[in-house]
Amino acid sequence: MRPVVALLTDLGLLDHYAGTMKGVVLGICPEATLVDISHDVPPHDVLTASLELAACYRYFPAGTIFLVVVDPGVGSARRPLAAEAGEYRFVAPDNGVLSAVFKEAPPRRVVELTERRFARPTVSRTFEGRDRFAPAAGWLAKGTELRALGRSLTDYLRLEIPDPAVTENEVCGEVLRVDRFGNLITNIDRRSYDRLGRLGEAALEVRAGDHRVGRLVSTYSEIMPGEVCALFGSTDHLEVAANSASAAETLRLTRGAVVTVSRTAE
Amino acid sequence: MRPVVALLTDLGLLDHYAGTMKGVVLGICPEATLVDISHDVPPHDVLTASLELAACYRYFPAGTIFLVVVDPGVGSARRPLAAEAGEYRFVAPDNGVLSAVFKEAPPRRVVELTERRFARPTVSRTFEGRDRFAPAAGWLAKGTELRALGRSLTDYLRLEIPDPAVTENEVCGEVLRVDRFGNLITNIDRRSYDRLGRLGEAALEVRAGDHRVGRLVSTYSEIMPGEVCALFGSTDHLEVAANSASAAETLRLTRGAVVTVSRTAE
Amino acid sequence: MRPVVALLTDLGLLDHYAGTMKGVVLGICPEATLVDISHDVPPHDVLTASLELAACYRYFPAGTIFLVVVDPGVGSARRPLAAEAGEYRFVAPDNGVLSAVFKEAPPRRVVELTERRFARPTVSRTFEGRDRFAPAAGWLAKGTELRALGRSLTDYLRLEIPDPAVTENEVCGEVLRVDRFGNLITNIDRRSYDRLGRLGEAALEVRAGDHRVGRLVSTYSEIMPGEVCALFGSTDHLEVAANSASAAETLRLTRGAVVTVSRTAE
Repeated sequence: MRPVVALLTDLGLLDHYAGTMKGVVLGICPEATLVDISHDVPPHDVLTASLELAACYRYFPAGTIFLVVVDPGVGSARRPLAAEAGEYRFVAPDNGVLSAVFKEAPPRRVVELTERRFARPTVSRTFEGRDRFAPAAGWLAKGTELRALGRSLTDYLRLEIPDPAVTENEVCGEVLRVDRFGNLITNIDRRSYDRLGRLGEAALEVRAGDHRVGRLVSTYSEIMPGEVCALFGSTDHLEVAANSASAAETLRLTRGAVVTVSRTAE
Repeated sequence: MRPVVALLTDLGLLDHYAGTMKGVVLGICPEATLVDISHDVPPHDVLTASLELAACYRYFPAGTIFLVVVDPGVGSARRPLAAEAGEYRFVAPDNGVLSAVFKEAPPRRVVELTERRFARPTVSRTFEGRDRFAPAAGWLAKGTELRALGRSLTDYLRLEIPDPAVTENEVCGEVLRVDRFGNLITNIDRRSYDRLGRLGEAALEVRAGDHRVGRLVSTYSEIMPGEVCALFGSTDHLEVAANSASAAETLRLTRGAVVTVSRTAE
Repeated sequence: MRPVVALLTDLGLLDHYAGTMKGVVLGICPEATLVDISHDVPPHDVLTASLELAACYRYFPAGTIFLVVVDPGVGSARRPLAAEAGEYRFVAPDNGVLSAVFKEAPPRRVVELTERRFARPTVSRTFEGRDRFAPAAGWLAKGTELRALGRSLTDYLRLEIPDPAVTENEVCGEVLRVDRFGNLITNIDRRSYDRLGRLGEAALEVRAGDHRVGRLVSTYSEIMPGEVCALFGSTDHLEVAANSASAAETLRLTRGAVVTVSRTAE
């Protein structure tokens, strides 16, 4: 079976950086299948990368190695890591970028990439993706055991992933991601929502920023073009969406906007 | 021989969506070779996707499976399809996105993806690309017969692809695509053009919008930088182009602009 | 071992062009592994492509075939080439795009792609990438010898790659590339820099345009967010960078800006 190495970075596609990392992986493990998750994470945005990774990793084949390079601290003392969690392995800087995955799948083992023989001979202090992270992913793909890459550690950085606040009459969350369609994806998962009781749609009101969002629906096509609605999206989180239009533009909201679901007074 | 799965979507590269679909394909068929045609089809633009696909599919190896996810009706009653046409197979929503291909290569068989065992156990109503289309492509790559995926149908949606109007003295077409170089690509194919008779260049006049286009040439390099010309492009359709510049910007024209070729009065 | 074909083009990802070229390569050599370096070279910008290629090629596995299509002279008399240099092979138009690589690794052999049987039967005069360059790369990947592709030549075009001017007290270079992070990457390599003598940081002053750049550091994280510094980047060239910000925007400088390193008066 050919190992899959999936890349998630903020390196963009304008420059050669992502391609160079792939060259390094293939130099170590020529049989690897490389998959781009995205290289367009906003520069240095560790939280977004963490959420994107958590939204997709479980759809990859068991054994996939995720090579995550969003690394504002490149060249500093922040440690380079590799980890095993669920059926997957991860290579990333120790800046919390794996936090959202670890929240769902606590890691069985995390190691610091201390073994220099699994890095390139010279490690650039501005591009460790090429010289340290890509080689580690390549060696894992080649069959090297995680524990061989370095010493175990447990004090890896955890990033605060904002949870929704749930009270008896309201779930109060926020927009965590805006996708290319302008959908406003919140941190309100279905379980939090369900704690309001499985009330009919009429008994609940969704607000996004200052806007009362029309309806909770099952899919975009239930509403009129341009109309705004709330629905549970592909990762089972509440999102505010428009049919064939951008909810972000229509409502002029972006990441951080408050979204609430509350019981109506009746 | 390793099967090729070629993806054409409007999912963009900002989010994890396209990568997630690849993960799903590889989970079913690890030996697949994945190729991106584009993920930057304008959101929900079924006609553009249809034309892009028709412009490129025949350059892929026989047996290639095209996974086409431009799906404004996701989650609605529009049917999910798979089809065989020419030496290729296609997986797509039933919204006409395969029309331009079918115009050239009438399908031998079209099936609705009714067999649930070839989809993921839970199908999101906002991301069928992941849960229904990608698995179908993966199973086809793995060797599953098209007919196994569901019941045959013949009433699939056909999209109107605008044809040029040809009279004795004029071919009247329109701009269907503007590419990244600003070339204005029309629906005037060489056969329509030739019906004006194989006249010398001097006897024909090309107009784009209100502009008289300089010359019909064979290649961009025959004209001066910035000059605008007409030529037959890589899919043998008339395009209006500038040398080392954007014809779209120079002429301020875009999709839908009228382009005519007419006999001059002499 | 699976051959690697790495693509560098200005074809963008909006249209099907890059994907089409991959389809052609796979039709000839199904076992090829395809890697994107970038398709977002600014349209027709041969110098940028040349520098990007030189910055990354040596990180790919020995034997990699680089398919470089930045081709403002497509369709003209400019010749199509293939070349061997170092442990790599290259397919590109004869417009100097390989110059920066050849400066480091003089080619052992350059041939013109004259053998028509290694091109597609019909060669479009607007998309030789598809009909001539991609097939040549495919055949090389398939095992065809370089010399079989056409007649040797030695008068290939050399592009002027600007060198820094080095005097006893100053190195005067310029910004050659601005990357996605806004780093201003110059043509001042470490060897030129070292000719000022291995003076301590205090004895040297770096200027970029009209700005005195704060400090020469080893890595971005040594400076405060927003502060500007000079450092040697991942290809060992001096770059002007900001921590978690764009130096290009902060200093309002772009390609062509003058950067000098000089001895201070003391």
